[in-house]
Amino acid sequence: MKAYLDNGATTRTASEVWEAMKPYFLDDYGNASSLHQWGRNASEALERARATIASKLNASPGEIIFTSGGTESDNLAIKGIAHMHRKGHIITSKIEHPAVLKTCEVLEKEGYRITHLDVDREGFVDLSQLEMEIRPETILVSVMHGNNEIGVVEDIATIGSICTEHHIPYHTDAVQSFTKEPLDVKKANTDLISLSSHKIHGPKGVGALFVREGMQLKKLVDGGAHEFNMRAGTENVAGVVGFAKAAEIANEGHVGYMRSLRDRLVENVLKGILSSHLNGPPQKRLCNNANFSFPGIEGESLILYLDNMGIAASTGSACASKSLQPSHVLEALGVDPEMAHSSLRLTLSRYTTQEEIDYCVDALQEIVEKLREMSPRV
Amino acid sequence: MKAYLDNGATTRTASEVWEAMKPYFLDDYGNASSLHQWGRNASEALERARATIASKLNASPGEIIFTSGGTESDNLAIKGIAHMHRKGHIITSKIEHPAVLKTCEVLEKEGYRITHLDVDREGFVDLSQLEMEIRPETILVSVMHGNNEIGVVEDIATIGSICTEHHIPYHTDAVQSFTKEPLDVKKANTDLISLSSHKIHGPKGVGALFVREGMQLKKLVDGGAHEFNMRAGTENVAGVVGFAKAAEIANEGHVGYMRSLRDRLVENVLKGILSSHLNGPPQKRLCNNANFSFPGIEGESLILYLDNMGIAASTGSACASKSLQPSHVLEALGVDPEMAHSSLRLTLSRYTTQEEIDYCVDALQEIVEKLREMSPRV
Repeated sequence: MKAYLDNGATTRTASEVWEAMKPYFLDDYGNASSLHQWGRNASEALERARATIASKLNASPGEIIFTSGGTESDNLAIKGIAHMHRKGHIITSKIEHPAVLKTCEVLEKEGYRITHLDVDREGFVDLSQLEMEIRPETILVSVMHGNNEIGVVEDIATIGSICTEHHIPYHTDAVQSFTKEPLDVKKANTDLISLSSHKIHGPKGVGALFVREGMQLKKLVDGGAHEFNMRAGTENVAGVVGFAKAAEIANEGHVGYMRSLRDRLVENVLKGILSSHLNGPPQKRLCNNANFSFPGIEGESLILYLDNMGIAASTGSACASKSLQPSHVLEALGVDPEMAHSSLRLTLSRYTTQEEIDYCVDALQEIVEKLREMSPRV
Repeated sequence: MKAYLDNGATTRTASEVWEAMKPYFLDDYGNASSLHQWGRNASEALERARATIASKLNASPGEIIFTSGGTESDNLAIKGIAHMHRKGHIITSKIEHPAVLKTCEVLEKEGYRITHLDVDREGFVDLSQLEMEIRPETILVSVMHGNNEIGVVEDIATIGSICTEHHIPYHTDAVQSFTKEPLDVKKANTDLISLSSHKIHGPKGVGALFVREGMQLKKLVDGGAHEFNMRAGTENVAGVVGFAKAAEIANEGHVGYMRSLRDRLVENVLKGILSSHLNGPPQKRLCNNANFSFPGIEGESLILYLDNMGIAASTGSACASKSLQPSHVLEALGVDPEMAHSSLRLTLSRYTTQEEIDYCVDALQEIVEKLREMSPRV
């Protein structure tokens, strides 16, 4: 048996998405900037895709910029704002994705000041600290929506209100939460939102940035005047068509389904495995995320044993999976290093079955028991 | 009848490419950074693709960075070198793609000095001017390989030798020439080479940058340590697999085939249409490119009439097709504005048939005649 439980890293392309993309590879393969029929067909597909993504956020199509993925979107948002100023102060959190943290690190070397907000034991950003840290020279707040490792869903509505009150642009990385949590730009007061296709059963190499009307950004990629002159490069028509199809078919039913399976997973792991612990909050959590610690066990060993049994899991972000550093997210939560090293992330999709979950729980019990027998530390 | 003669703008994805990508959407859809079986399959596919692209340039796989396309590659190369310095002097040419020209324009605003080399009437860069313009503060030379509008193939070997002699990195945009002209990094002395997938029957949204071993670049997209820590973001596995397949199946036979059809096109147009003129050189020209001027005719009208007859053509770069500016390339060649406004680019692919070429020549004769009858200017 196999069980793919690493949907936080990436997902299978939905067959509907695959089918939707096909004509844009083989028939309507024109360049969306070309004036002839092939070009117009491509351009119309591009604009339909833009409208679909916009509607999912209650945004206008003119506020959606297609990019090559969530990481580029984060870079475009943060550097795009920063480089409109020569210097300034940026507020982010300690539990952001590396796409945000590394970008801020680079800006810090360029002379910008960066503040990293603390989070509580469950991962919620300290909102009073946010209020306190805002200064006249603050040019941007970047706090994520749903965390990729522990699934905590931040209160972006309140963060957005605080930012609006102080007239500071607010960027949120919604790569993990898009289509899983409500996200309405008319309500949330977010000015910049990063999205990714491959986390929602769309193709890899495609993302988007919501840019609230009137916001100005310095371009990251210069060249042609594509994407409302915010991102140069021949538009990836098939890719954005696939992304839009993926967004279109994602629904509330999938969310409920994932949540109930995830709850079954959490319950059975906590009940069945001694000293197991759930990292992140029990509520206000992405519907498909579970993150456990199993004291006395190395997370990496767990991954390898699970892999031998056909189960895909991770210790945290795939983007950092080849590093042996403990998770910066768990560290920020105050999880002690040993607990952090024993962490395991299981992330579900709408295609995950109850059978896979039960198989995974059984496998985990067996492996944890075996590893603890072998380990001198327990 | 239909004839797609805008392959300089983009190409149909080859069916072999489509087939090669399929498993990486639907089965081996893992994140190449993940440690489990799905991740390893993805990572192996990624590295095979890298080796294929490298072999096409006689480069090492470690010298190939995958990007989201030619425009991003140009940006990464030029900004990547520029931002390793605080200031400096960059030499480019007057006939570069907007991805290079606009990037240089932005750097100029940041305080870098830019020199644009002249070209002769056929589009060849002035090599003695290059020698003369090199200064102690010169940090980069960026001169393209094959021009996207007029097909001129620059002497990159000599440009590379001059740069090597002066210890200056040399970047070339080889988006149009890749797989069409010989390109061997052991011979050409180019340090940075931009490539694109969708110009060679691969998917859109995928490109590469050759970065000679030992070269350092400031990253454009920060985040995870993907692509030898030169370009962050989840790798577009299916996309690069498609790109590699496209490169793999492109061969010398296709080049010869395109050249002979293109020669037929040029011959019949010049013979059959009064006062028609070929822009760019008769030799040392991309095998699939023809660029004509038809004095007294607006290029845009020509495009529309051809489109009505099912023929896809362009006036120049698709990236600038929605602007009504005359081509900066023809202007640099010294083509007078009226001639430049009457230009038409026809670009072939290995799928172009003799029937399509003959249909296009007939259509052109008919349209040019009709438009000249209507026009008071001739």
